[in-house]
Amino acid sequence: MSSPLQIGLLVFPRVTQLDFTGPLQVFSMVPGAKLHLIWKRIEPVPSDSVLTLTPTTTFADCPQLDVICVPGGGGTNDLLNDEEVLDFLRKQAEGAKYVTSVCTGSLALGAAGLLKGYRAATHWSAIEMLGQFGAMPTKTRVCVDRNRITGGGVTAGIDFALTLVSLMVDRTTAEAIQLQMEYNPAPPFNSGSPDTAPAEVLALLRERGAQNQARRLEAVKRAAERVN
Amino acid sequence: MSSPLQIGLLVFPRVTQLDFTGPLQVFSMVPGAKLHLIWKRIEPVPSDSVLTLTPTTTFADCPQLDVICVPGGGGTNDLLNDEEVLDFLRKQAEGAKYVTSVCTGSLALGAAGLLKGYRAATHWSAIEMLGQFGAMPTKTRVCVDRNRITGGGVTAGIDFALTLVSLMVDRTTAEAIQLQMEYNPAPPFNSGSPDTAPAEVLALLRERGAQNQARRLEAVKRAAERVN
Repeated sequence: MSSPLQIGLLVFPRVTQLDFTGPLQVFSMVPGAKLHLIWKRIEPVPSDSVLTLTPTTTFADCPQLDVICVPGGGGTNDLLNDEEVLDFLRKQAEGAKYVTSVCTGSLALGAAGLLKGYRAATHWSAIEMLGQFGAMPTKTRVCVDRNRITGGGVTAGIDFALTLVSLMVDRTTAEAIQLQMEYNPAPPFNSGSPDTAPAEVLALLRERGAQNQARRLEAVKRAAERVN
Repeated sequence: MSSPLQIGLLVFPRVTQLDFTGPLQVFSMVPGAKLHLIWKRIEPVPSDSVLTLTPTTTFADCPQLDVICVPGGGGTNDLLNDEEVLDFLRKQAEGAKYVTSVCTGSLALGAAGLLKGYRAATHWSAIEMLGQFGAMPTKTRVCVDRNRITGGGVTAGIDFALTLVSLMVDRTTAEAIQLQMEYNPAPPFNSGSPDTAPAEVLALLRERGAQNQARRLEAVKRAAERVN
């Protein structure tokens, strides 16, 4: 490769940090890749926890990316009707080789009109919302449809990123990163999907998430009116 | 629980960020937990990638923790003979309920004399070094020996943290976090352990890591002389 791969990840207030720190770890181990953490301004933004995130570039200063990746989380709701964010995503998507997301980041791609007619994945709690943007929601952990590559919830970002590296670089590079990260997972419980989690655990999360879910649905509906 | 769980993660220059952002995601979803990112000074420190880490407290200001967790990475080498770091770990370990690490963070626990006579895990590339600190290295992904809980390399931090939450809170809380994180892993390749990775991939990493490995061994030997 003559010029470095330019890989950019959106960081925004109340992003679920593991949505992007997982893929960031994978991408930062690609020899020669140049990584960007992108937001409107360069000032640190709060994540969903005590971790503060410091962008490395702004929408205005960001070079054309080969990969644009949008993570998700509670803060996603505020992206869906933010024209400055959606414009940036559309502009980058025109020239990018891969337009990607992790978790509910796919809702932002959808709100930017970038998933019309594409299959796409998202966090299990948002799977029914994706269709409102003209996407075909899929329950796979990683979804590859032409140059749209989307991951499921949070930790799916690691599987997503390894898949993307194998597509855009090669399999050996992805395998070397997997070994370096000792990504040989052994979850202590079998609760990682709504299909396998105990019913009371699923009910607990649905109850806890109900308020956010209502706000999200409202933001999705408003955004979907613009897209369709 | 009457007072919040105090959970602290060490952040230091050239830490492998996923070593601690994985556990951080898990811990930050424990209802009522108070998280701390700890270093000598409060100024941002560089991780192993473009992500800059902003400590939330200093060694001097950090309260007594219930859980102290040391992540690993390239920067580990510089911790092993740093008395300010080792003193902080020893002081916290006296009052902590759990003394923990992810990846090569266990070398720092060892250098602080905190693993003598304990079984412990670490990144596959460092497994033979742990013994120098009087620990009994184990190749498990998560190792629980009394109140020393140590994880294997990088992504093992997620399995480690879910295990710890189930021990210190309860299983349902851990399962709810696993579901929220959609931790239902599906690695695209089978290269996550030296036992399963293609031989040429393992050889590639051993070659690339040789210089760091030599420096690490030197730092371990120097630290081990003090401990024994």
